Amino acid sequence: MARSRKPSAYARAGVDIAAQERGLAEVRKLARGTFGPAVLSEIGSFGGLFRPDLTGLAEPVLVASADGVGTKLAVARMADDFSTVGRDLVNHCVNDILVQGAVPLFFLDYVGAGVLDADRLVELVRGVAAGCRENGCALLGGETAEMPGFYQPGDYELVGFIVGLADRGALLDGSRVRAGDLLLGFPSAGLHTNGYSLARQVFFETMGLGLRDRIPGDPERRRVGDWLLAPHLSYLAPLRPLLSHPGLHALAHITGGGLTDNLPRVLPRGLAAEIRFGSWEVPAPYRVLQERGDIELEEMLRVFNMGIGMVAVVAPDAMRELSRGLAAAGQRIHPIGTVREGEGGVVYDLGLTEGALEGGP
Amino acid sequence: MARSRKPSAYARAGVDIAAQERGLAEVRKLARGTFGPAVLSEIGSFGGLFRPDLTGLAEPVLVASADGVGTKLAVARMADDFSTVGRDLVNHCVNDILVQGAVPLFFLDYVGAGVLDADRLVELVRGVAAGCRENGCALLGGETAEMPGFYQPGDYELVGFIVGLADRGALLDGSRVRAGDLLLGFPSAGLHTNGYSLARQVFFETMGLGLRDRIPGDPERRRVGDWLLAPHLSYLAPLRPLLSHPGLHALAHITGGGLTDNLPRVLPRGLAAEIRFGSWEVPAPYRVLQERGDIELEEMLRVFNMGIGMVAVVAPDAMRELSRGLAAAGQRIHPIGTVREGEGGVVYDLGLTEGALEGGP
Repeated sequence: MARSRKPSAYARAGVDIAAQERGLAEVRKLARGTFGPAVLSEIGSFGGLFRPDLTGLAEPVLVASADGVGTKLAVARMADDFSTVGRDLVNHCVNDILVQGAVPLFFLDYVGAGVLDADRLVELVRGVAAGCRENGCALLGGETAEMPGFYQPGDYELVGFIVGLADRGALLDGSRVRAGDLLLGFPSAGLHTNGYSLARQVFFETMGLGLRDRIPGDPERRRVGDWLLAPHLSYLAPLRPLLSHPGLHALAHITGGGLTDNLPRVLPRGLAAEIRFGSWEVPAPYRVLQERGDIELEEMLRVFNMGIGMVAVVAPDAMRELSRGLAAAGQRIHPIGTVREGEGGVVYDLGLTEGALEGGP
Repeated sequence: MARSRKPSAYARAGVDIAAQERGLAEVRKLARGTFGPAVLSEIGSFGGLFRPDLTGLAEPVLVASADGVGTKLAVARMADDFSTVGRDLVNHCVNDILVQGAVPLFFLDYVGAGVLDADRLVELVRGVAAGCRENGCALLGGETAEMPGFYQPGDYELVGFIVGLADRGALLDGSRVRAGDLLLGFPSAGLHTNGYSLARQVFFETMGLGLRDRIPGDPERRRVGDWLLAPHLSYLAPLRPLLSHPGLHALAHITGGGLTDNLPRVLPRGLAAEIRFGSWEVPAPYRVLQERGDIELEEMLRVFNMGIGMVAVVAPDAMRELSRGLAAAGQRIHPIGTVREGEGGVVYDLGLTEGALEGGP
């Protein structure tokens, strides 16, 4: 039978399989660069194989989370730079399981596009692979979908999925939190992956700024694009050595919302978090967003992380030792408040002149 | 401090958090309906917790896969019916790890939308949860992202992640496949989740059909929409009892392409698959796509499953026993070919008058 072929009918429908294959070969190479001895398969089989090291675990528990990058992707597209969002995604997922006491085993990604540019795919996955390597986690697999007409040309969707491991007895679930515990805030690098719809509206529409413009009034003279694309930080490295410390009572990842909605997720009934607003310096870009966007402080605290990407809930008598451990790992921290008796939620102490602001889940 | 609030600034940016919350509450309820005793957490903590039962496993291996539904979502949107695509997604993922010898533990989903309609979200996740229940797998968590301006109004992205478990010694990786092995084809329900860009082009653009139109020349008189939205079948139930049978040498999930690209994924070097085209009846809708789309058979076999959703590679001496097991489980099968020595790929025997057609990965 003749081997001549018509131009691929599938290509005519908008899917160029050959171009996809070239990109996928590079993607597989990037993924292999994250493989340790626990990975049994190469990418390309139907699923990835991972043999977890269960040594020393009395009762192994898998901890899993799925996340997207959200409309930070729209900023990446504006900036014509998808090199950073992969790291955002991995670090976000790593933090989500870290706060349960788990360390990452492996990660899978999903990239969706209308028309998949092979170079863009590689740029995206290079960031994912870098994030995986930095967190000691295997990029075990992924899916790439070309969906003509579904995504707008130039847009890319990026979704991630992480699986980590913890011993059941060492899980962090908030149950150890007590009145009198101290709240330690870990600085964020910016918005991380949260609040981008609103931030874009204020910066680009209300204020008419461009990515290359400096944020007005920012003493650090950051450009809008640089600040918005600053990658989500992973807090695994400084926290990993402390996960089994009995004085570390809980961790809250400040994402998908601000302190107001995230801290209560680790507070047992009958307890509230009291945050001393002003105990850390809210970075200037948030103040710009608040003022120029005409957003009330309550809303700011509900939507944005306000410069705090992670909160550790710490027993008072362990404070010194844990602080030293974090400092030794190069992690800056701010004591931002305490746990007290109360009806859930977060109470913001705004100082003598302003009174208190209550928020709840 | 005053508790009055401006209309939410975040809502002004296009994200209605309250409406999302209502939908999410229902979604959590649906997820809880899939939980067995292995699930330690409720949805809503930062990550889902799953304690796998490792009893009897010498060397537990986690098998993971990520998948999307692809442009079948565009058909769901046309039909104003997102009730079936969740099951598509779960069954697709279940099959992907089943072919490695793994049974599912848990699943996570991602739903992306421009503006998230709470009822639509519930409709989508209800299908995901039903698929999970049917496959005995927990819907351990998920992510819902509202990304105004990113997705077109009415469009929903749906991505799934699955983790399963196998004992290392019982993994299926194709290494047991030998020349002389038999190929058993399992009927698909339709296109499953593959080839929708091309199928939509032919049915809707070339042929000008609507969803309610019957497929011309189909003796079963199926409607275009019904056939296109027929959910991806899971082959877990019939195959699970046979996974440890030594005569089951490999399984190939026919997805992301046709037999041509999927069968070689389980063929060791030096072997090829010979498929007797005509040994199963290709359902009429594929013939319509081929003729009216002016698509060569080679391309059809590369893009579409042609009515075969799964292929089992079976030792000849185990054929009778395995066939009986499958029949007892209500699974129809077609003997569609054999493994022979050759240089990889798939050779299609088209019968005496037409000769052979070679395809390769």
